[in-house]
Amino acid sequence: MTKIYWEDFPVGRIDEFGHREVSEDEVVEFATEFDPQPFHIDKTAAENHFFGGLIASGWHTGAMLMRMIVDHQLKNSTSVGSPGVDELKWLQPVRPGEVLKANAEVIASTEHKYKKDRGFTKFRHTVLDQNGQEKMIMVSTIIFLRNPDEGES
Amino acid sequence: MTKIYWEDFPVGRIDEFGHREVSEDEVVEFATEFDPQPFHIDKTAAENHFFGGLIASGWHTGAMLMRMIVDHQLKNSTSVGSPGVDELKWLQPVRPGEVLKANAEVIASTEHKYKKDRGFTKFRHTVLDQNGQEKMIMVSTIIFLRNPDEGES
Repeated sequence: MTKIYWEDFPVGRIDEFGHREVSEDEVVEFATEFDPQPFHIDKTAAENHFFGGLIASGWHTGAMLMRMIVDHQLKNSTSVGSPGVDELKWLQPVRPGEVLKANAEVIASTEHKYKKDRGFTKFRHTVLDQNGQEKMIMVSTIIFLRNPDEGES
Repeated sequence: MTKIYWEDFPVGRIDEFGHREVSEDEVVEFATEFDPQPFHIDKTAAENHFFGGLIASGWHTGAMLMRMIVDHQLKNSTSVGSPGVDELKWLQPVRPGEVLKANAEVIASTEHKYKKDRGFTKFRHTVLDQNGQEKMIMVSTIIFLRNPDEGES
């Protein structure tokens, strides 16, 4: 199996992937554990709220995006983790019944200054629903190992 | 019960709260669902990795922080959600057996330009372990309703 290295994510590369159905049970289950605000866990309260019905915790949406990233971008890669997120915007509520996918654009790629075996890849990930509506944007950095077969530039 | 309004979070206010034990089972369970990378779900692989043992998904740490925020800051508040996160940094791995708490500092407070019934509160939340080591920093904004009993400034 071919490993995915830092060099495989040049600036401008765009991938679209994922198919995550959002179920009411899962929305309530996640929020009951991690974000028990009424509009995430109480259907009646949510319907009377200006959100007009249950919406997923933003952390749940982020976690669902992470799963799509792992399945489609990190699974066979040399990722060694992430230092963090530069920006995370919840643009529209995510509701049960929607089907989420992700768009990933590489917006920066830099060598590690000291550790010559790795590099930083900055992605802009967008979560979209089945109609293409943008739900969440995340700009974050992932560290990948460099391909030992490619010489120093 | 007294409701917590936007006015209750002036710039400079600092709160420390939370007591979240991180269990190995929970680390593996969360990551199996949302972030199935070897160093989050496979104890043997994690021990042979430079992380030197299982570490929690960064999304799990964020979700655990969210739960502490809900329990201690949002529960009786007028929070109506968050537009997003300005910064999220994972400083140190979170490992099973650690006990997390949170420090919350209000770093900005602004009125909503158009919706006069609400305002934005920007927090810097820091997740610390039982020894005070900083694990994660998050700068994010929460929208609270304004106290109708307080006049316009």
